[in-house]
Amino acid sequence: MIDNNDFKIRKIISSLKSSPIRNIANSVIGKKNIIPLYFGETDVATPSFISEAMKTALDEGHTFYSANQGIPDLIETISCYSSDLHKNNISPSRIMVTSAGMNALMIASEALINPNDKVICITPVWPNFMRCIEIMGGKVIEIPLRHHDNDNKWKLNLEEIKKNIKDAKAIYINTPNNPTGWVMSRNEQLEILEICRKEKVWVISDEVYERIIYDKKVAPSFLDISKDDDLLIVVNSFSKSWAMTGWRLGWMIIPEGLINIFEKLNEFNVASPSSPAQHAGLVAIKEGEKFIQNMINDLKLSRNITIKYLNNFSQVIFPYSEAAFYAYFKIKDISDSEKFCFDTLQSTGVGLAPGTSFGNGGESWVRICYAKSPDLLNEAFEKLKPVLS
Amino acid sequence: MIDNNDFKIRKIISSLKSSPIRNIANSVIGKKNIIPLYFGETDVATPSFISEAMKTALDEGHTFYSANQGIPDLIETISCYSSDLHKNNISPSRIMVTSAGMNALMIASEALINPNDKVICITPVWPNFMRCIEIMGGKVIEIPLRHHDNDNKWKLNLEEIKKNIKDAKAIYINTPNNPTGWVMSRNEQLEILEICRKEKVWVISDEVYERIIYDKKVAPSFLDISKDDDLLIVVNSFSKSWAMTGWRLGWMIIPEGLINIFEKLNEFNVASPSSPAQHAGLVAIKEGEKFIQNMINDLKLSRNITIKYLNNFSQVIFPYSEAAFYAYFKIKDISDSEKFCFDTLQSTGVGLAPGTSFGNGGESWVRICYAKSPDLLNEAFEKLKPVLS
Repeated sequence: MIDNNDFKIRKIISSLKSSPIRNIANSVIGKKNIIPLYFGETDVATPSFISEAMKTALDEGHTFYSANQGIPDLIETISCYSSDLHKNNISPSRIMVTSAGMNALMIASEALINPNDKVICITPVWPNFMRCIEIMGGKVIEIPLRHHDNDNKWKLNLEEIKKNIKDAKAIYINTPNNPTGWVMSRNEQLEILEICRKEKVWVISDEVYERIIYDKKVAPSFLDISKDDDLLIVVNSFSKSWAMTGWRLGWMIIPEGLINIFEKLNEFNVASPSSPAQHAGLVAIKEGEKFIQNMINDLKLSRNITIKYLNNFSQVIFPYSEAAFYAYFKIKDISDSEKFCFDTLQSTGVGLAPGTSFGNGGESWVRICYAKSPDLLNEAFEKLKPVLS
Repeated sequence: MIDNNDFKIRKIISSLKSSPIRNIANSVIGKKNIIPLYFGETDVATPSFISEAMKTALDEGHTFYSANQGIPDLIETISCYSSDLHKNNISPSRIMVTSAGMNALMIASEALINPNDKVICITPVWPNFMRCIEIMGGKVIEIPLRHHDNDNKWKLNLEEIKKNIKDAKAIYINTPNNPTGWVMSRNEQLEILEICRKEKVWVISDEVYERIIYDKKVAPSFLDISKDDDLLIVVNSFSKSWAMTGWRLGWMIIPEGLINIFEKLNEFNVASPSSPAQHAGLVAIKEGEKFIQNMINDLKLSRNITIKYLNNFSQVIFPYSEAAFYAYFKIKDISDSEKFCFDTLQSTGVGLAPGTSFGNGGESWVRICYAKSPDLLNEAFEKLKPVLS
């Protein structure tokens, strides 16, 4: 065990919560016959038309630094794509390409969070932005979604948000949401935007799953309803829509007039995103619609299998999930989801992610990523049957 | 002009010094017949054996997230490379692959710098780490190298360092140095290590130019003389040694026992570096020695041309430079290096980097990057002749 005093690492950093998911996954490294449903990643490699575009970029010598903002063609392409998708003009001067959505979130934290600034985070949520806030010395205020028993849906706790908004520097919303599959409604977005405008609070909207939705082309976005001077940062990524998790490429959309400030932050974080990857990203957007449609069709099959099994397991309460590729469900009579996931991994070989990964209150909950082949999913659920029935 | 109050961006961020180099380069975007000597990049694209390795990685489906620390084979390869180069055992558990040396420096800042912590920076220096310190709320204490007239060499100001070390959290040293080409001697490293051990101050050694040196295989490194529990972070990069600037791949070597903490920071910055790029980096190290030798031979030619011209220009004082691929020189009778660089770019078409980019005291200085073909360099110096003679 490291004595923090010996190394003079910042206290907040040495006590930064590590991911319980990683802890569980690490417990079976090298072990065979594990079905890993804990990570947020499909099992489909990047489609070849995207890889081929990177190869061409290499052959054409695109191996030098790019501009901090990103390569102009990609920025223009994102502008067209996003404007089209959201029926709103998103000008290139509001777009910065980043080394993944993750780094966009780190940059947002660096831009906004002074020590002790408070940020409202709607939970359960993928925890990484909460850790970015803490790295910058800020304070996280978790405001959980409420699970309504009557219609088995997640609902925003607007009352609690209104109570806390005056003290906050920003509100962080991940919609469509990892882990719950909850999607913020248009009305909720309008309300949030209104109270944030009134109180001059930043909205940081993490919309990386906007295309992973099953009954429409794209999820409601703050980009649909905002003006270009709203205090709004929308973060997006190539990881989920185009199966490019290992590439580390994303983008952020910021208010008009701030690009010079954010370019500096790109410079001091990673300088500029990978040049050959940016050339591939451009092709992903331009030629990727069919890939997205096919992926959604495949995910629908996996989703149906998941719903069928989970609704039949007697120990499981599974709230309705309308987007992303996760199932987040409660297990009756468990109160230590990390121990449950460790034990289940040992006894069944199926890797689940503990609910405590996603904020307070996840002690009875687990998440699976169902972006796997039907065969693998069926096998996983059959193995889980003794534990969850 | 943005009113900071309207956007509630952190004061330190909106006032963060942008790079005067970028300002000058931006003034001629799209203009033809410019010879850009301002950026720190060779004009050689990444060699094909490295690009081919990335293509193979794509074909083999290495497009998923990697472990936070990096892919095990690459970590093992860096461990062997570094241990061999520095005749010291650098264990894999001290190595983390990062999205470029730049992100390694940002991560080092996040780990160490609390608000108002002081960090000694030896200047002139590539300014990005100074900005990282400021982003984290820390304070930069610049301690300039002294230019000795008698032997025309840069010397460390050890007295001034000793005076300030007690108040500092860390000392940042870039050796071989961008922009001066100064290389810290073994004796100086021993002295710095001794006083930092005594005062429990971190050494952050940015050694990305360790292979760009003209009379030996590798520059003296803190890795040659340190123990694995010294408060030492050594940052390295694939950018300079293997002409991979646009790839964004680097690594950091940290004390034994801290990898779990730094893995978390990788997670919250970029998650993990690009997977296909890591596979290419592995091949770069394993098969890249001949490329490095050839590059150094080419750079020697460019360096000789540079020395010949600069020593003959009557307005120029050019201290001896033994490494990296820059010439940092003083111009008599100028006191505004940014204006000088703007004017020179307009009148000659040659892009120089103003000395004010590299810390205080650069008002009479400029930097060129001479990692260009002999023809282009000759042309540039002929164009500069009227201004510098």
